[in-house]
Amino acid sequence: MPELILLDHSGREPLYMQLYRHFRAEIEQHKLKEGDKFPSIRGLADSLSLSKITVEKAYQQLLCEGYIKSGNRARYSVNKFVESSWPAPASQAAKPAESPAEPPVRYDLASGEMDMGGFDFALWRRYINKAFTDQNRLMRYGDPEGETELRRQIVNYIRSRGVDCHQEQVIVGPGVQSLLNMLAGILKPYHGGIAFEEPGFKNGRRIWEDRGFRIIPVRLRREGIDTGELAASGARLVYVTPSHQFPTGYIMPIGERIRLLNWAGQTGATIIEDDYDSEFRYFGRPIPALKGLDTEGTVIYMGSFSKVIPPSIRISYMVLPDRLLEIYRKRASVYNQATSTVEQLALARYMADGHLERQIRRLRKLYNEKHALFRDNIRTVFGKRVEINETESGLHMVLTVKSALTPRELYDRALAKGCRIALLQDYYLGEAPVAPSQIILYFSKIPAAEMPTAIRLLKEAWFETS
Amino acid sequence: MPELILLDHSGREPLYMQLYRHFRAEIEQHKLKEGDKFPSIRGLADSLSLSKITVEKAYQQLLCEGYIKSGNRARYSVNKFVESSWPAPASQAAKPAESPAEPPVRYDLASGEMDMGGFDFALWRRYINKAFTDQNRLMRYGDPEGETELRRQIVNYIRSRGVDCHQEQVIVGPGVQSLLNMLAGILKPYHGGIAFEEPGFKNGRRIWEDRGFRIIPVRLRREGIDTGELAASGARLVYVTPSHQFPTGYIMPIGERIRLLNWAGQTGATIIEDDYDSEFRYFGRPIPALKGLDTEGTVIYMGSFSKVIPPSIRISYMVLPDRLLEIYRKRASVYNQATSTVEQLALARYMADGHLERQIRRLRKLYNEKHALFRDNIRTVFGKRVEINETESGLHMVLTVKSALTPRELYDRALAKGCRIALLQDYYLGEAPVAPSQIILYFSKIPAAEMPTAIRLLKEAWFETS
Repeated sequence: MPELILLDHSGREPLYMQLYRHFRAEIEQHKLKEGDKFPSIRGLADSLSLSKITVEKAYQQLLCEGYIKSGNRARYSVNKFVESSWPAPASQAAKPAESPAEPPVRYDLASGEMDMGGFDFALWRRYINKAFTDQNRLMRYGDPEGETELRRQIVNYIRSRGVDCHQEQVIVGPGVQSLLNMLAGILKPYHGGIAFEEPGFKNGRRIWEDRGFRIIPVRLRREGIDTGELAASGARLVYVTPSHQFPTGYIMPIGERIRLLNWAGQTGATIIEDDYDSEFRYFGRPIPALKGLDTEGTVIYMGSFSKVIPPSIRISYMVLPDRLLEIYRKRASVYNQATSTVEQLALARYMADGHLERQIRRLRKLYNEKHALFRDNIRTVFGKRVEINETESGLHMVLTVKSALTPRELYDRALAKGCRIALLQDYYLGEAPVAPSQIILYFSKIPAAEMPTAIRLLKEAWFETS
Repeated sequence: MPELILLDHSGREPLYMQLYRHFRAEIEQHKLKEGDKFPSIRGLADSLSLSKITVEKAYQQLLCEGYIKSGNRARYSVNKFVESSWPAPASQAAKPAESPAEPPVRYDLASGEMDMGGFDFALWRRYINKAFTDQNRLMRYGDPEGETELRRQIVNYIRSRGVDCHQEQVIVGPGVQSLLNMLAGILKPYHGGIAFEEPGFKNGRRIWEDRGFRIIPVRLRREGIDTGELAASGARLVYVTPSHQFPTGYIMPIGERIRLLNWAGQTGATIIEDDYDSEFRYFGRPIPALKGLDTEGTVIYMGSFSKVIPPSIRISYMVLPDRLLEIYRKRASVYNQATSTVEQLALARYMADGHLERQIRRLRKLYNEKHALFRDNIRTVFGKRVEINETESGLHMVLTVKSALTPRELYDRALAKGCRIALLQDYYLGEAPVAPSQIILYFSKIPAAEMPTAIRLLKEAWFETS
């Protein structure tokens, strides 16, 4: 054994660690070979003027990591060393980030995020702080199905949507995508395919594709999903957005709703109703949810708070029919709740105190005004060059642009002017209809004062060749 | 058309809504039939002494929901009504919750949750409040890969585990299960099966089962997963916990680690390393992660904060090898981030200020003491009736109970005394070895002062027939 071991006694690194490193390097560099005996603890401690504890700790570490093994009379020897077949690790820390060279976005008209003045953070923060008083609860994993207080508030909240359920049916999750993902897992043994509105919620569709479901695109008409085509498709599971179809904004009339429910009742199918954007109807009262008409337990109802409180607070929910509860409990309850407990508790109290209702009223008023302003600006600036698909609801509009440019060209030219838009064609699973060019413009996060500028930029992009 | 419509002018319900409800009921009860003409807006407004706006709103709502359709000269008529094939919805609100009749749990020895005094909530709350200053950020959806500041801190943090990576490789998610779920989605096109330690992390295994992966159980030895059996199994994807095998607590020695990496390098396999509980080694320094030895990019590294800060704060991370980053971006980046932004920002600053390091040091000291106390109490109370699988790490111990009782009987009798325990056999995918009875006891959340009581209760349950 080597006798010369240089140790740094300045205290920067514990002595046992230096000793450990020394021996480890000797073994890795084959200076010590398999079977080589280590000095006794006492012997090495004496020769290096170290405490026995120090040497023992170093040896223990080598032993734990498998560099040495213990033999007779507490003497250690070098273990069989398995050679690594590659070079030593190179540092990757300096690796530069990949940067897609997109032009800077000044106006993001492709995002339904909230108006900057749309939320009272000071108030919310008070509720977060109140939620910290329940530290016992915060010490634990959350309830896999969501905190009781919040589920109770959700039962009350969706009653206004016509949904009548009990608390046990409500499952909380950190976003509609997470809940769809869970649903896909639960429903996989029973379904090979799922019908989707075409065009439809592509980021939701992807979850089912990734789970190995066959996607059955079903044509969307002005009355919502084509129930005739749906029935003919043989699908037994369908995802719909009847209150405000995404992305077209169409509303499914009562007759079609009942036709859809009848189809499900007669075929034993399951309907997933995403009650997307139902809070933002600027005319008349909100349309009751499909789930409110569901007597057979064929509808799974989903909702999200991401449009009424900022989406950085990740809370969504679904209502399972009783017949699915048992399957859910059996299959999904091993999954830990992924939603922040403190945010759940804060939201429950915020709702109980009536703040969510007030917040929605305030937002609805704000968006109603912005909706009208945005529409009027488009009409003024574009005149007959565009047609607006008016639905008087939601946070976006679908525009038909009368231009020879392809949708992709419209997108690129808008982006070159600093405006990000979305294209209706991207929401199709199959081929989108060729003409005319339909684009999606969200107005929710564009400041009212800047709407004229944003819309003028779009006009420049599409109709003024420079 | 009926002329008598009773409206309540007290203001409890808007007049247009009453009008809407009235007509809706008439249609649903077939008092109005398909094609029946509605009175003109002006006509009805005059006859009921209502404003035209009120009537118009009611009509619009009926129109939106499909009860009526518009005809010539703005006259509306009753739409074709599709009959619902079921009775009206019955209220489910009063439905009682299902309550499994389990005895009350006084000591939960089956949970690795934190010691009640283990976290300074007042300090954490200050960081949450600081994070609220960045309201621009909180208005938006979070970065799908996690907030930049946190990812940067994680790069620094895991450097102490020997992991050298760049920020772009770090993906944040709300729990290891969520990240495994995402990984399973990404890897599905390339892998039909995944090898798991047997016994192993059953709630992780379930995610892969639910995704349709074939689970390949590979025997666990004292040196970790049996690399020979693994190689023979033909698996090309494996999940391992080398730093502290769950649930046995075994540590994989260096030789085996390199053998595992060699296997992956030679076969093109991918290793998922869950660096579970690596913070809690009570003897010597922490074992460096397998990922630290990985030069070929075969290892996906995963870690969680759920043992070092309370698990109600859902934050975990994984480090993807460069070759998987592109696949991740293509397939997973459509998923919204599910982790609370404010908690991510708070944690980033908490880490930057050195609090996480202090918190871990404090917890390690606390758990080291509790570990020793728990072990000593078991030895004193049980004597030779049990054997402790000593690993000097983690938050739980595996006990071999020398009793004729089956593991399930041990579980039931403990529960009858108010003590919830876990059984090693439940972590096997296949058959567990029959004898002896091995049980898992977590000590982390049992108050030190109550350990003697909890352990005496277990002894009464198993060795004192009353």
